[in-house]
Amino acid sequence: MAGMTDRPARRGRPGHDVEAVLNAAVRLFNANGYDFTSMFEIAESLGITKSSVYHHISGKEQLLQMAIDRALEGLVEAADEAEAMEAPALERLEQLIRRSVLVLTERLEFVTLLLRVHGNTAVEQQALRRRRDFDARVTALVKQAQAEGGIRPGVDPATAARLIFGMVNSLTEWYRPRRGGAAALADTVTALAFDGLRTR
Amino acid sequence: MAGMTDRPARRGRPGHDVEAVLNAAVRLFNANGYDFTSMFEIAESLGITKSSVYHHISGKEQLLQMAIDRALEGLVEAADEAEAMEAPALERLEQLIRRSVLVLTERLEFVTLLLRVHGNTAVEQQALRRRRDFDARVTALVKQAQAEGGIRPGVDPATAARLIFGMVNSLTEWYRPRRGGAAALADTVTALAFDGLRTR
Repeated sequence: MAGMTDRPARRGRPGHDVEAVLNAAVRLFNANGYDFTSMFEIAESLGITKSSVYHHISGKEQLLQMAIDRALEGLVEAADEAEAMEAPALERLEQLIRRSVLVLTERLEFVTLLLRVHGNTAVEQQALRRRRDFDARVTALVKQAQAEGGIRPGVDPATAARLIFGMVNSLTEWYRPRRGGAAALADTVTALAFDGLRTR
Repeated sequence: MAGMTDRPARRGRPGHDVEAVLNAAVRLFNANGYDFTSMFEIAESLGITKSSVYHHISGKEQLLQMAIDRALEGLVEAADEAEAMEAPALERLEQLIRRSVLVLTERLEFVTLLLRVHGNTAVEQQALRRRRDFDARVTALVKQAQAEGGIRPGVDPATAARLIFGMVNSLTEWYRPRRGGAAALADTVTALAFDGLRTR
């Protein structure tokens, strides 16, 4: 199939067939667990044969890698964009949180899978390393915002980063897409992270 | 064995043997997954025979139920105590969040297991119902605090409740016990939830 690659290009659109197989696989991985999902079931859920799936995909692990890439690339792009902004670190952090919420709502199934990865294979261990790199970038922004006086002193940057992304990542447990919901939710998360719930 | 029950009494101390089996089981469930853990492995990890485990415990499902009870009873007690306080709803909510953080740090392995339950069995479905009841109590407190003017208007109470417990529950992903750490962490979580990170 022309133009098809193992990994979707950053902004390119991969072949429809691979896209359909990937979406079906991620849905089944999330519903039943990666270990409990077979290539046969993925094919069956699409009403195609297993051999036509293997025509495009080398196996389950490739699907897992593609799904993890889809989730992580969105978050890494969000971090790249935030860091490139010419603005105080507090605003860059706010932008990163806002964009991360939007990435999660847009790539919900992919991020859900990413967050369940526990390092049992080389692909999963690499995913954990990339998650840690992302966390370190969030922590660095919190630290910088604190140094610039935008964030209260006395807050541990790594703890703050973990708690904020605890909020953000919880979306995979309860968010259900609806029109306009993602932007409003991004506002709520950033408002809570920066100003809290209390009336003032 | 005298005084031993299927479920540990609220404040009683269950027999040492059951406690040891429960702790070993929860450790293995969390590390390898409930479905991938056998009663033989639980016994083996304690250096005892499978039949001596069955002397105390009817099977894996009972261990799952006990672990879930241990997690949920801590959270339900926290909600009971908070609701019984004679104080504005905002303070009761703050107390509930603070106590929930402490419950999580004290019962980390049990809550970790609870949060991974996805409703595949009757025991798991009941756990999900009880989690939803707890969430509803948090949402009701947020709503009441808002009605009393303590929480900013315009924040959706259910969303706020989910985001706050997104922070709290994320502890199961990253918290490592250390002396004095739990109380400081409870302070950080409540400060972030109510006042946010921003300097003012």
